[in-house]
Amino acid sequence: MMSRRFADFTVGRCFVSRSHTIDAAEIVEFARQFDPQAAHLDEQTSGENLLGGLAASGWQTAAISMRLFVETMEVTGGIIGRAVDELRWPVAVRPGDTLRVEIEIIEARLSKSLTGFGIMRYRSLTKNQHDVVVQSFVATALLPATASDMP
Amino acid sequence: MMSRRFADFTVGRCFVSRSHTIDAAEIVEFARQFDPQAAHLDEQTSGENLLGGLAASGWQTAAISMRLFVETMEVTGGIIGRAVDELRWPVAVRPGDTLRVEIEIIEARLSKSLTGFGIMRYRSLTKNQHDVVVQSFVATALLPATASDMP
Repeated sequence: MMSRRFADFTVGRCFVSRSHTIDAAEIVEFARQFDPQAAHLDEQTSGENLLGGLAASGWQTAAISMRLFVETMEVTGGIIGRAVDELRWPVAVRPGDTLRVEIEIIEARLSKSLTGFGIMRYRSLTKNQHDVVVQSFVATALLPATASDMP
Repeated sequence: MMSRRFADFTVGRCFVSRSHTIDAAEIVEFARQFDPQAAHLDEQTSGENLLGGLAASGWQTAAISMRLFVETMEVTGGIIGRAVDELRWPVAVRPGDTLRVEIEIIEARLSKSLTGFGIMRYRSLTKNQHDVVVQSFVATALLPATASDMP
């Protein structure tokens, strides 16, 4: 675990996570804690809600996607998100959906202001079992790096 | 609860949430589930990490901010986020920090494509007890609305 370095994240490289199947109990538990709205809480009444049935909070999809990202990237010394742009939830995540994350590196450079760190930009797609994108964003993150890591 | 309608969210109106104090156990519990990296997991070793000590996952700050948002806005029929832009975590969230959310409505209009719904854009700032912004974003959300809700 945690065995990849900055030099491994070259522009254009793609990573695919394992899959995670989300169930109704998990959706409701997260919603009780962080997003207590009918659409995320109750299978009985949520047929009448905005999402037409029980669906995960977008922030739960984001949190699960982070888990899959961390496990997949295995960054030595850790990786810290600084900025996320164009975060979208185009399709609802339903109980029983199987999610995976696809990461593409779009930029990798040494930080000018923070010695010993690299800045990486990547596109993150979370897809369901039908290959439909349920979440997308572009992120900027910081990770340990030195000049010797650069190509 | 859940007593505000689309017509209540006029452009320029601001809402301030209650406060939530985050503790170390809460940071570690969220990290174990969703962001298992040293900076978010371990008070002992995380002094050596990217964040210089135990700090909350940005996605935990986002989830807590959603909770405070939902409680504060009390939207009849619920409110569903579709897009988040310019999500930033400029300053680390530490154990003992007291967070609150400030919301400003920046756009409110009826949806052209979805009858019975309004589209609201708002700026969300999460601040700590020193009035320092620890998270910011601009969101676009969908909520029930009809022409009679418009000014």
